[in-house]
Amino acid sequence: MPLIQLAEHKLFGGLQRRYEHHSNSLNCVMQFSVYLPPQAAKGKVPVLYWLSGLTCTDENFSVKAGAQRIAAELGLMLVIPDTSPRGDLVADDPAYDLGKGAGFYVNATETPWAAHYRMYDYISQELPALVNAHLPANGRKAISGHSMGGHGALVIALREGGYSSVSAFSPICQPTECDWGRKAFSAYLGNDKAQWLQYDAAYLLAKTQTTLPILVDQGEADQFYPAQLRTQALQDANQHSQSGAQIRMQPGYDHSYYFISSFIEEHLRFHARHLAG
Amino acid sequence: MPLIQLAEHKLFGGLQRRYEHHSNSLNCVMQFSVYLPPQAAKGKVPVLYWLSGLTCTDENFSVKAGAQRIAAELGLMLVIPDTSPRGDLVADDPAYDLGKGAGFYVNATETPWAAHYRMYDYISQELPALVNAHLPANGRKAISGHSMGGHGALVIALREGGYSSVSAFSPICQPTECDWGRKAFSAYLGNDKAQWLQYDAAYLLAKTQTTLPILVDQGEADQFYPAQLRTQALQDANQHSQSGAQIRMQPGYDHSYYFISSFIEEHLRFHARHLAG
Repeated sequence: MPLIQLAEHKLFGGLQRRYEHHSNSLNCVMQFSVYLPPQAAKGKVPVLYWLSGLTCTDENFSVKAGAQRIAAELGLMLVIPDTSPRGDLVADDPAYDLGKGAGFYVNATETPWAAHYRMYDYISQELPALVNAHLPANGRKAISGHSMGGHGALVIALREGGYSSVSAFSPICQPTECDWGRKAFSAYLGNDKAQWLQYDAAYLLAKTQTTLPILVDQGEADQFYPAQLRTQALQDANQHSQSGAQIRMQPGYDHSYYFISSFIEEHLRFHARHLAG
Repeated sequence: MPLIQLAEHKLFGGLQRRYEHHSNSLNCVMQFSVYLPPQAAKGKVPVLYWLSGLTCTDENFSVKAGAQRIAAELGLMLVIPDTSPRGDLVADDPAYDLGKGAGFYVNATETPWAAHYRMYDYISQELPALVNAHLPANGRKAISGHSMGGHGALVIALREGGYSSVSAFSPICQPTECDWGRKAFSAYLGNDKAQWLQYDAAYLLAKTQTTLPILVDQGEADQFYPAQLRTQALQDANQHSQSGAQIRMQPGYDHSYYFISSFIEEHLRFHARHLAG
């Protein structure tokens, strides 16, 4: 088996595991975390992929969100990848918002990033294939994420088929028009803005007549709202496409995992409904 | 107000705050965290004190346990102190199990520790007085903790009046007879073992005909069980004293916060019942 198990903890009657494997898309060794609900001991279960934000690894969501309690009840497997390629051979940048911890879920085309930074392929193709082959997954999947990971979840679900639903907390809705996105996309994708748009959730939603169930929560006291997150652009795109996305503003909540933990139960129940449907 | 608010996050409709203050018992500046449930905006509420384990600060439980969801439902304030005095003037040791992060909830009598390491007084006297004076506390309190903090919670509740209930996860039940306890107590209290016994939960329970409600959970896959934790000594003391403590073994669970998060709901409901009674 190409997955090496690094750790296992019993949690809400299920198992929290950490795996290591060699990624062909990223050309390096990667780690990811999985929560196997109690139901996975007896049969195959649906999977929710969680994409984390800038500076995170697979551990932040595993430890802070409190999602496993609900996943145990609902019989959902959680798969929680890292946010970039890793290792000494991988290009990096001293800033927190470029390089390691900041892969932005794109396939980089520019030097020095293109050699490893292919997170779009890793998350949308390689990791699901690995999960379906080696873990008790029933083939149904949904995707969610936070901030940079909310951007990744929306972009992947809107472009790829096969996700029953998508949700996001505080997503970077229009990276082509904010500082974080312009910096990362210039580095990873070069200066042709036409290339950037394939990774812009607001642009993708506006041009898609999608029936994909979409749920977004945005805290009104978020320190990155509205400048970096540009939630309004997603709301505008939603009206334009009539996609029926629920985009909810939550008064008083900030950008932290305290916000995520407050609403993760609603997101998991939303995904479970559509995964069962 | 002698409490300086350092941070505030909205969480499950309530507020997670971090405070700084000068501690007279510890003779240094301390930080602690508080969760104010939504009910505290309208009136005074009971308080659950949480004592953390070796190497922890107030942040581990705040971020990892998932307790605030249940505290919000039950109307419980959570008060989460640090595990030792802090600051450049405070004596320390390079080991993880002595000095900073390892106060063991005792009043040290030996040099160089006695100048600051008075965690017993801080937790049992100074902090509750501060909380009652400056936060919306109704005067009813309970106490819980993990590992070194489970030891602290049991010892303080058994010695002091005024706690409605006590609970512990993976407590160090008999520190006078395990490596962690012998090392810390020798340093903080000297070599007179009679002094040590005032901080030994198994000893205190055996000699007390207490009616205090006590709940203990111990994972059977805990890497520190049984050698450091000596749960059997607490079970023996419980039989001897007929105190009616519930001491539960939980198959498959380890010493991590994944164990705590799996059972914290039962502990909070246990405390809420007795705080209301």
